[in-house]
Amino acid sequence: MTRGVAILGSTGSIGRSALRVLARHRDRFRVVALTAYGSKGLLFEQAEATGADYVCLVQEGHAVSGDRGVAIGPECLIDAATHPDADIVLNAVVGAAGLRATLAALRAGRRVALANKESLVMAGDLVLAAAREGGGEIVPVDSEHSAVLQCLTGHGASGMQRLILTASGGPFRSWPAERLPEATVDDALRHPTWDMGRKITVDSATLANKALEVIEAHYLFGLGYDQIDVVVHPQSIVHAFVEFCDRSVLAQVGFPTMELPILYALTHPERIPDEGAPRFDPVGAGSLEFETLRRDDFPAFRLGVAAGKAGGTAPAVYNAANEVAVGAFLDGRIPFHAIGDIIDRVLETHEMSPAADLDTVLAADQWARERGEVLCSSH
Amino acid sequence: MTRGVAILGSTGSIGRSALRVLARHRDRFRVVALTAYGSKGLLFEQAEATGADYVCLVQEGHAVSGDRGVAIGPECLIDAATHPDADIVLNAVVGAAGLRATLAALRAGRRVALANKESLVMAGDLVLAAAREGGGEIVPVDSEHSAVLQCLTGHGASGMQRLILTASGGPFRSWPAERLPEATVDDALRHPTWDMGRKITVDSATLANKALEVIEAHYLFGLGYDQIDVVVHPQSIVHAFVEFCDRSVLAQVGFPTMELPILYALTHPERIPDEGAPRFDPVGAGSLEFETLRRDDFPAFRLGVAAGKAGGTAPAVYNAANEVAVGAFLDGRIPFHAIGDIIDRVLETHEMSPAADLDTVLAADQWARERGEVLCSSH
Repeated sequence: MTRGVAILGSTGSIGRSALRVLARHRDRFRVVALTAYGSKGLLFEQAEATGADYVCLVQEGHAVSGDRGVAIGPECLIDAATHPDADIVLNAVVGAAGLRATLAALRAGRRVALANKESLVMAGDLVLAAAREGGGEIVPVDSEHSAVLQCLTGHGASGMQRLILTASGGPFRSWPAERLPEATVDDALRHPTWDMGRKITVDSATLANKALEVIEAHYLFGLGYDQIDVVVHPQSIVHAFVEFCDRSVLAQVGFPTMELPILYALTHPERIPDEGAPRFDPVGAGSLEFETLRRDDFPAFRLGVAAGKAGGTAPAVYNAANEVAVGAFLDGRIPFHAIGDIIDRVLETHEMSPAADLDTVLAADQWARERGEVLCSSH
Repeated sequence: MTRGVAILGSTGSIGRSALRVLARHRDRFRVVALTAYGSKGLLFEQAEATGADYVCLVQEGHAVSGDRGVAIGPECLIDAATHPDADIVLNAVVGAAGLRATLAALRAGRRVALANKESLVMAGDLVLAAAREGGGEIVPVDSEHSAVLQCLTGHGASGMQRLILTASGGPFRSWPAERLPEATVDDALRHPTWDMGRKITVDSATLANKALEVIEAHYLFGLGYDQIDVVVHPQSIVHAFVEFCDRSVLAQVGFPTMELPILYALTHPERIPDEGAPRFDPVGAGSLEFETLRRDDFPAFRLGVAAGKAGGTAPAVYNAANEVAVGAFLDGRIPFHAIGDIIDRVLETHEMSPAADLDTVLAADQWARERGEVLCSSH
C-alpha cells in the first residue's frame, strides 16, 4: 500500500528535492496535495507530473483557468495539511506562515516531516501539545536534526547526554570581524556547501539559522540548552554528533543533500533502498575540520540561543525580527551587520510573556514584525 | 544484580583496560575469573584487587605458594571460559590460543566479549555454529567492530549495505615503499595513535591487523568481502562507517580508548553512564583525514583479505604464518619486509581444505607454524 504525502511549499528548494525523491519511490508513496505561495507555472507542472488530487496557491488574487480545481488563499494550506489521504505532511513552507499548518496536521494525527523549523521555534510547546493531543508525530527534515534522529534510533533518547550540531560557518566563516560591515547581498548568498533558498542562505551567513536549529533541537529531543553545542565544520560532511551516557559518540555523515533527510523523514524508523542517492566516500570528502563558533562576531546566533533560553514569546519575536531584517537586507534597505542590531533592539523592547496559546504567539510575531520594520526603515 | 565477568588474558593491554573499566562499575559487574599467560605477579595483584574466585596461569611450570588456589596450564583457560558464575567472558588472549576458549564459552551459552579476533579469523563458521548451538553471543571488543555494532544497533543488519573500517595506517603510512626494508623493530612499535601490545602493534604496521579485522567483520556482520572497505584515517577518531540501504552513513567517533568498546561489549545493547571515559571534542580532534590504503606496499593486508575470500583453512594458515613471522621479526631474526614474503610463501604451498572441524583448523595452524618457522630460519 502506498502512503499519501502532502507537500506544503512544493515549489521551493525542499519541495523540489522532495518531488525528485518521491519520483524514485512511486511504489511506496503517492503525492496527494501540493501547495505553493505564488509560483503558479511550476506548481501546475508538478500537479501534472504527480497527479496530486489537491493543488493550492497560497497567494491571493490568482486567476486560475482550466479544468483542474485549484484552491486559492492562505486557508488552503490547512486543507492540504489535513487532506484525508495524506498520511504524511511535508511542511516546507518558509517562515512563520508554516506554523498553523503544522498544528493542524498534528492535531489531525498526521506525521509531519518538518522542514519549517519556525513551527518549533515560535511555538515549540504548542506544537508538542498538538502532537500529543492529536496523535501526530514530528520527524525532522533539517539535515542536522535528521542526523540526530538517525543516531538516536534504537538507542533511546534517554541515553543521550549531549548533541553537537555542525554549522558550515557560512560564507563569512573566515572573514575578519572588521570586514563584515562590507558584506553584500551577493556575498551573503554565496553559501560554501549547501544550495538553498535565499532567506535560509542569509540565515546561514548570520548563523541565525543555527540558533533556530538549536531551539528546534531543544524541543525535538527534549534537551536542555546546556546539552546542545554547535561546532563549525566548513565541509558540511558530518551533520551532527550525538554523545551518549557512556560518552560514546555517533555521527551521521554524507555529502550535502536534502534528499536523504527528506526520504528518511518519510520512512523513519525504517530505511528503504535508494539507488538515486549520492554515495559517500571518505577519501573524496577530503579533510574534515572543526572550529569553535565565533559567537562574538555573529550576534544573530548568540541572540537566538538567548531567546530560546528565555522561552515564552521570546523565540517567536527573535524569529520575526530576523525575518524582517533579512528581508530588508535582501531588498538592499539595510547592511548585513544591521541584521543583528535590529534583532537585538526588537528583543530589548519586547515584553515577554508565556507562549500560552497561538494568539499570544501570533500577536508577539506581529508586534516584532512591525517593530522590526520601523527599525529597518529608520536605519 | 551484578553480572559475573571472566577475563581471559587479564594482564595484557585489553585485560588491564577492562579491569580499569570494571573498577568503575562494581555495582553492575563482578570479576569472577582471571587468567594470564605468565605474568604471575600482576595476576596475583589483580586477583587481590578484584576478589576473583578463579585464578589461572596458562604457562606451565609455575610454582605457586600461599593460600590462594591458582590453576596452572592451558586447560584452565577453558575452565575460566565456562566458569559457572561468568555471564560474560572477555576473551583478550593474544593469538590462536584464544580459539578453544571462545568455542567453549559460546557452547556454554555465555556472552563472549571478543578481543581475540583470531577466533573468528581461524574458525569463523565453527565459532558461529558454537554460538547457535549453545545459545552464546559474540559481541566485538575491537574498536572498529564495536563502532559498527553501535551504528547498527536499532537499525537491523539487513539494512546495512557496506561498511568501511578505518585504519590508522600505522607508523609506516607515509614511508615511501623503498624505505620499508629499513624498518626496525623500534620503528614498527612506534604506533601513532593506539597504545597496544607488541604483536598487534606490528600487525598494525604491516596492516595484517586490518586484514584480520576485515575477516572478523565478514563473520560478525554477515557481509560479503565486496561490502567491506578499508580507508586509512591517520587520526583514529572515526572508528568505522556504516552505509545503509538508503545510502545514509553513520559513524562512531571518539578519541582512541579501548575502555569504551570494552564497556559497550559488556552492556550492549544498553549503555550505562561512565564518567571516567574521555569526552570527545571535535575541535580538539583536529583535522580528520582519509586516504586510500596502499595495498601494493602492504602485502600482508592484501594476502589476508585474499585468504579470507578463499575461506576454508586459508585464513587460519594466514594467521599462523603471520604470528610466526611477526615473532621472528620481533626477535630480530627477519627484517620487516620479510613478514609479507613469509606469509605469501606459506599460503602458496598450503593445500586448502574446508574448515570442517576444530582438528582440521588446528592441524592447518600447526602446519603453517612449522612451515613458517622453516622459512624464517632459512631467511
